Amino acid sequence: MDIKPYKKDSDYSYSLGAFPTIELLKTRPEECISVVVHSSFTDMATINELAGKNNIPVFVNDKLINKLSDKENVFVIGVFKKYKCTLANDKSHIVLVNPGNMGNIGTIMRTATAFGIKNLAIIDGVDIFNPKAVRASMGAIFRMNCKYYDSFEQYMEEFKQHEIFCFMLNAKKQLLVNNCPKPKLFSLVFGNEATGLDNKFLNYGTSVIIPESDEVDSLNITIAAGIGMYLFTQGSL
Amino acid sequence: MDIKPYKKDSDYSYSLGAFPTIELLKTRPEECISVVVHSSFTDMATINELAGKNNIPVFVNDKLINKLSDKENVFVIGVFKKYKCTLANDKSHIVLVNPGNMGNIGTIMRTATAFGIKNLAIIDGVDIFNPKAVRASMGAIFRMNCKYYDSFEQYMEEFKQHEIFCFMLNAKKQLLVNNCPKPKLFSLVFGNEATGLDNKFLNYGTSVIIPESDEVDSLNITIAAGIGMYLFTQGSL
Repeated sequence: MDIKPYKKDSDYSYSLGAFPTIELLKTRPEECISVVVHSSFTDMATINELAGKNNIPVFVNDKLINKLSDKENVFVIGVFKKYKCTLANDKSHIVLVNPGNMGNIGTIMRTATAFGIKNLAIIDGVDIFNPKAVRASMGAIFRMNCKYYDSFEQYMEEFKQHEIFCFMLNAKKQLLVNNCPKPKLFSLVFGNEATGLDNKFLNYGTSVIIPESDEVDSLNITIAAGIGMYLFTQGSL
Repeated sequence: MDIKPYKKDSDYSYSLGAFPTIELLKTRPEECISVVVHSSFTDMATINELAGKNNIPVFVNDKLINKLSDKENVFVIGVFKKYKCTLANDKSHIVLVNPGNMGNIGTIMRTATAFGIKNLAIIDGVDIFNPKAVRASMGAIFRMNCKYYDSFEQYMEEFKQHEIFCFMLNAKKQLLVNNCPKPKLFSLVFGNEATGLDNKFLNYGTSVIIPESDEVDSLNITIAAGIGMYLFTQGSL
């Protein structure tokens, strides 16, 4: 197999780093094509065990590691086939509308997994399998169901039982520790890091905001999402 | 003045971007040496007004913008003298022990300012004036007092009235929405993103953790810090 630097239309992608690759081997071995390691990497026991159990080849190839690692300090890379998921109807969701930054998407996946939210809808198709998103997720992407939707309306049509909460700077409701709603099924909706959610989202479900000083323009989207997920899942772990 | 790419031992640094530069002009005009703008930048009213009021020169210099902007999409740069601060004795603090990532430091500053915590101690001297930290802070750095300490013990010696909370994965106390302490003066202490706080911090004040699933290794440091700051400042904004 001739392995090339990542492109959006590739049918495979990479997990950069030992931890995300071990997550790949643990949770999606059927999608893993091969593991590439650097000759200076010595902590092979877990990788060899997981790869061996699933008949996944492990190669030493320093040149390939250097080519794919994008200047980061990487000694292990997992190559995996991109795959499709469906979202669970009976679980709560995160919805990202037009997210722009791969690192942020990955960080939100990592936080969501930490708080037990494992279904993610992406509206307006950024490529979640970009290796930067996979790496920032620390492999949490492999534990989640992620699905693209063309529009938020299409998403809502499919999940009518989910109560919707849109995080917006001009929201009606401030999220405090003692007033966070506790619906059985919720969808937490976050917008683009630069532009947020547009005003039509004021009409969907409840618009909410983390109260903050007027000395900043806003919280970073990953922080707002982190606090939101923490509040909505309190008591459920 | 011959303006060069940033180095740690430079006596000046840069705010990259219009928003951080406007924050610089609003809050630390006395430290601002000059403002450099790209010829394609048209939204000059606020910058001209703030710079004019403080007799700060504004130059158009596309070549310099390209040289300093580190491939990011930047049209305005503020050049400022590095300055020293002292921490307020009668306000709560954030303490970062051996932080490693400039983007994370800036994001934590932005979150701290959003929650009204404006005093930051840095243990073990990373350079907070690095332009990457300034940019990630979105200019919040200029609203804060930041001070370096050689050791955490030196910091504690100076602020004996502050109640200390160390965020650690092996902490004794889980931080829930309904059990967060509310001391008048607190110091929230966070470790390095890869290695955390070492075990000696279990002996300082109270060790705390944001409860999380065992399906991730940990929350990203900026997320843990964001949730921590949100909980400790609830009701104070």
